[in-house]
Amino acid sequence: MGNKKWGEPGSSRDEQRQAKRQAVLLAGAKLFNDKGYEQTSLEDIAQALNITKRTIYYYVQSKEEILFACQQSGQEFLRDTLADCSDPSLPVIDRIRKLVTDYCAWVCTDIGACSPLVREVSLSPDRRAELRAGRAQLDHLLRDMIRQGIEAGVVRECDPRLMTSAIFGALNWIPYWNRTENPVPPGRIAEAYLNLIISGMVPAGQV
Amino acid sequence: MGNKKWGEPGSSRDEQRQAKRQAVLLAGAKLFNDKGYEQTSLEDIAQALNITKRTIYYYVQSKEEILFACQQSGQEFLRDTLADCSDPSLPVIDRIRKLVTDYCAWVCTDIGACSPLVREVSLSPDRRAELRAGRAQLDHLLRDMIRQGIEAGVVRECDPRLMTSAIFGALNWIPYWNRTENPVPPGRIAEAYLNLIISGMVPAGQV
Repeated sequence: MGNKKWGEPGSSRDEQRQAKRQAVLLAGAKLFNDKGYEQTSLEDIAQALNITKRTIYYYVQSKEEILFACQQSGQEFLRDTLADCSDPSLPVIDRIRKLVTDYCAWVCTDIGACSPLVREVSLSPDRRAELRAGRAQLDHLLRDMIRQGIEAGVVRECDPRLMTSAIFGALNWIPYWNRTENPVPPGRIAEAYLNLIISGMVPAGQV
Repeated sequence: MGNKKWGEPGSSRDEQRQAKRQAVLLAGAKLFNDKGYEQTSLEDIAQALNITKRTIYYYVQSKEEILFACQQSGQEFLRDTLADCSDPSLPVIDRIRKLVTDYCAWVCTDIGACSPLVREVSLSPDRRAELRAGRAQLDHLLRDMIRQGIEAGVVRECDPRLMTSAIFGALNWIPYWNRTENPVPPGRIAEAYLNLIISGMVPAGQV
């Protein structure tokens, strides 16, 4: 239990438990991303943490709970972004920049990469529906910003739904090619993608 | 065997066999896309075709062979595109347009959607390596076109590798959101994505 992977002891019992549960999620996420969700067992996750399968059950009830918790924490992570991006006093292009940069940083983490790498068919219908609702919220936020940009004349005429799908598609695909020994830093990817996205959306002469 | 799904009889014995094998691949691809690869058995595929599992073995040896054959046929489908896109007498922007349009049409088919929807961890290392080589060829084609465009002054200064990953990412993500009862036609998606891509890459004033 002195194992580094198994988390540093927190100050209270509850904090210790939370830190250890987080270590279980992280170890699970890494294995799902590398080997595949279906190819990973709770036994594998316990082994990676150097603990027994029985100990794991103290923190999670099933492999599916790990996957779901990882995907949920993405939605928590992005909650601040959602709040910032919904502030109408900020320029719409700055808000789009913030969303793309934060989302890019998120999918470059081990837990964040789970969402695009593991298909939602692996989850039970209830959990699938809950995640979909969270994703739809994010999707609609970007569509709305694009719509506001078109109205304000700072974004070209386009189909906001297709524009949104292209942007999230480019971002969701990052874990498929950037999980290497020398990954491209998320900040550099976000910058390159934003150059493509913003210049593509802003009418010529306004960049 | 008079089942429509099970293919129309061709003129020769070999053609009949090919048509039936193709029907097996298509039924497999549809199930992999809808239910997930790991969640689908050869039994399920046989059932969808209204044949026995024993009959399926006459056309393919395993579920993995179906997945691999589907992914290979994508590479065959794109061979013509590769040839057209390598013709240096055509303007580079037209060649990029052709690649994006053809790739978009392909991932919108049942067999084409398999590639981005089923993770390569499901394949054996040898087959994985073979597919990777094919994909790398496509990737390098687009990078080279972008590089040529930069040299010719028709594409903005950018990192061709990251530009390529953004474009293929947007395209590979299409089956994740467009496999609905009323899918957006591939031509409309390609047009919208090309507006974003081309305007983003071409220096202002040249569009």
